[in-house]
Amino acid sequence: MAIPKEFFSPESVAIIGASRHPGKIGHEILWNFARGFYKGKVFPINPSSERILGLPSYKSVLNVKEKIDLAIIAVRAEIVPNILKECIRKKIPAVVIVSGGFSELGPAGKLLEAELQKIVAGTNTRVIGPNCVGVFDAKTSVDTLFLSKSRLLRPPVGNISFISQSGAVGTTILDWLAESGIGISKFISYGNQADVDETDLLEYLANDRDTTVIAAYIEGLKDGKKFMRIAKKVAKKKPVIFLKAGKTKQGSQAASSHTGSLAGSAEIYSGAFKQIGILEASNWEELFDFAKVFSGQPMPSGNKLIIITDGGGFGVLAADEAEKQKFMLPMPSAKLKSKFKNFPSYASLKNPIDLTGDADAERYKIAVEECLKSIEFDAALVILLFQVPTLEKSIDDVIINLSRKYKKPLVACAAGSHYTQKLARKLEEHGIPVYPTPERAVKAIKAMLGFKK
Amino acid sequence: MAIPKEFFSPESVAIIGASRHPGKIGHEILWNFARGFYKGKVFPINPSSERILGLPSYKSVLNVKEKIDLAIIAVRAEIVPNILKECIRKKIPAVVIVSGGFSELGPAGKLLEAELQKIVAGTNTRVIGPNCVGVFDAKTSVDTLFLSKSRLLRPPVGNISFISQSGAVGTTILDWLAESGIGISKFISYGNQADVDETDLLEYLANDRDTTVIAAYIEGLKDGKKFMRIAKKVAKKKPVIFLKAGKTKQGSQAASSHTGSLAGSAEIYSGAFKQIGILEASNWEELFDFAKVFSGQPMPSGNKLIIITDGGGFGVLAADEAEKQKFMLPMPSAKLKSKFKNFPSYASLKNPIDLTGDADAERYKIAVEECLKSIEFDAALVILLFQVPTLEKSIDDVIINLSRKYKKPLVACAAGSHYTQKLARKLEEHGIPVYPTPERAVKAIKAMLGFKK
Repeated sequence: MAIPKEFFSPESVAIIGASRHPGKIGHEILWNFARGFYKGKVFPINPSSERILGLPSYKSVLNVKEKIDLAIIAVRAEIVPNILKECIRKKIPAVVIVSGGFSELGPAGKLLEAELQKIVAGTNTRVIGPNCVGVFDAKTSVDTLFLSKSRLLRPPVGNISFISQSGAVGTTILDWLAESGIGISKFISYGNQADVDETDLLEYLANDRDTTVIAAYIEGLKDGKKFMRIAKKVAKKKPVIFLKAGKTKQGSQAASSHTGSLAGSAEIYSGAFKQIGILEASNWEELFDFAKVFSGQPMPSGNKLIIITDGGGFGVLAADEAEKQKFMLPMPSAKLKSKFKNFPSYASLKNPIDLTGDADAERYKIAVEECLKSIEFDAALVILLFQVPTLEKSIDDVIINLSRKYKKPLVACAAGSHYTQKLARKLEEHGIPVYPTPERAVKAIKAMLGFKK
Repeated sequence: MAIPKEFFSPESVAIIGASRHPGKIGHEILWNFARGFYKGKVFPINPSSERILGLPSYKSVLNVKEKIDLAIIAVRAEIVPNILKECIRKKIPAVVIVSGGFSELGPAGKLLEAELQKIVAGTNTRVIGPNCVGVFDAKTSVDTLFLSKSRLLRPPVGNISFISQSGAVGTTILDWLAESGIGISKFISYGNQADVDETDLLEYLANDRDTTVIAAYIEGLKDGKKFMRIAKKVAKKKPVIFLKAGKTKQGSQAASSHTGSLAGSAEIYSGAFKQIGILEASNWEELFDFAKVFSGQPMPSGNKLIIITDGGGFGVLAADEAEKQKFMLPMPSAKLKSKFKNFPSYASLKNPIDLTGDADAERYKIAVEECLKSIEFDAALVILLFQVPTLEKSIDDVIINLSRKYKKPLVACAAGSHYTQKLARKLEEHGIPVYPTPERAVKAIKAMLGFKK
């Protein structure tokens, strides 16, 4: 049975274990729905039946007369089975179990989790979790994350969807995306996958119009054969990027204590991902780096890269990485160089093009536009040392306009503190990914090339 | 001839090419000395002889009656030779030539640079540059960087010294360090090294009491034999970390256009560094990552690592990287685990120790303290998902106090936006390096282990 849309766009939500005490998980989640931008009905469920955050609360979902689309369970593990039974009796299509204390704890927890599986099997209810932080949907403001917005920012609406077996790994990526002004469609932390697994989520996201790129952090696959069958189809429709954790012996042991996953052999996973057409990130930073390049930029049609910089050393580092990643760095032709005849004599018109430390927005405009326009290059890496005194803040608009005008991938590199980050954020808000190092920028363009069909 | 101390602690400075126009290089540099915390005398040198930033200016250094310790030359390349002759006649011991337009431009520029070398040879003047941003000394406020403080922050006083052939690569690391609250002793961007080269600088820093770790970005060595002879001695005294750029064919071509360097073979360089005892960073981020771990933490006495986390996924990623880096992750003994008897049953007392998403500062205190105290571990990686609702801000003080109390290396990992960064900054100000990913944190500890004598 496919995942119901009620996980992401429920008309009504019950928070079971809703609490009046700030800092408690059941309080933070209720706050998100009651005080955020969520537009549907909200039912706090709590044995004391008090009003919480101004809303009447109920002893059980069975006491709520109206229909409930989504239930979020945040109570101690032992009573989850009974609560889940009530949700099923209430015919709630979507249930998120945030509570931990299941298979990640060993044999006793595994038994409790098996009980959940038995309860839900054959019903019309689907369960995400247990041992997860659940769902965030930027469009509908469904937000089961128990991390308060004062500590963890939420990203704006965008086209990346992200599934994560780990709540911590997942939510910190949300925090990073939000800080960069990069949008997200759906985020799902799915924990121990007692019912809904990564493959169900992939399948849902493949058919989701708001999602154009799927990123995933996984520790172990629940059903390898099912995954292979479905993921092949998904990867044909949209870019899919996976970070597989627990690839070493010690990492695999840690995964077993974390989400009860059998992590399996690194080689088998990597081989399977390659066969399916899934792009594998080699570390956590890369998962983030790759997701954002697919989110905002068109695919390159070849591997001829132009590097444009105002800092020579960055150009050298970028050229080193470009060669490692097997890019071609063709020299600009005489015809192309003739467009740069007004540049100062000390500018270097090779590849990288070094506009040098007194570059201004106009010099960048000419260099970037002529290179994007030319058939000599398939993609551009624009390194912006924003700190040089001659570079006006209007450089952002120049780059944004050129990126819109030409249908070639443009990736930026900019490193620095508050001044740089402010200008970088504006670029990212407009779909131009910005990386803090030349190496990471080159690898991101390479990721797109790897996905080219 | 050794480098004179006047590059770093001059009693008087002349800025040749000082300008009244904000945005001009000669203005920005003068501003740093005239309006910053520099305590010595400042002489603007400018043919128009006007007052600039309230200071009387002079047509030439020869018109200044008092002694001049340091001259900074920021005029167009063609007139640099004559200006340099005047500096020598004035017996100025230290000269920084910021101007570009020399060997990085090819044959004509090489001739001009050779002229500089001829002028300075056999004199009592030493020259840094040309084609560089020069010197920053946090203690004396010598600051020849032409990037304004509103765009590029300056770090506080610390014990890292950093030499860089590239101005852009160097200054952005200053910007990062400043943002993190990490201090620096001396920064030198040395450009085309017409006179002073990386070996001279290494030798100076080896004897500098304010420097405990040396980081370097280099494109090409000027004199390989001299370097081998001196660097061997330096690396015995202090940790030295190198990032070698221009290691590929295309990167090497870029380096030649940038600082006129012959970059040479990657294997030869790596082999030499290893022989000397220099730690090689494999990318730019690592140079920064490694410098800060040596700056604040003692060396580990062995490879037994404990990972402590409140986010399971981070623990898995850290364990994966620890195994790749050949760390041992011993399980805590029964005796050690008995200290954690008050932890909740769902906490995982293996390695990683997972304090889980409801950890508080007290739980961290017990776990970190008992592990640092125990002979079972040589180093601790403390992963702090600051965003969880139960973790108080006082966690910073807990970690800072424990790091001071026990003489074992403690490295932190924390990822997130403003809330996380604020707490991370406080740790870094107190010498505890914080990395945004578990992988980078593990590699930093490994770097120290690699340096162990």
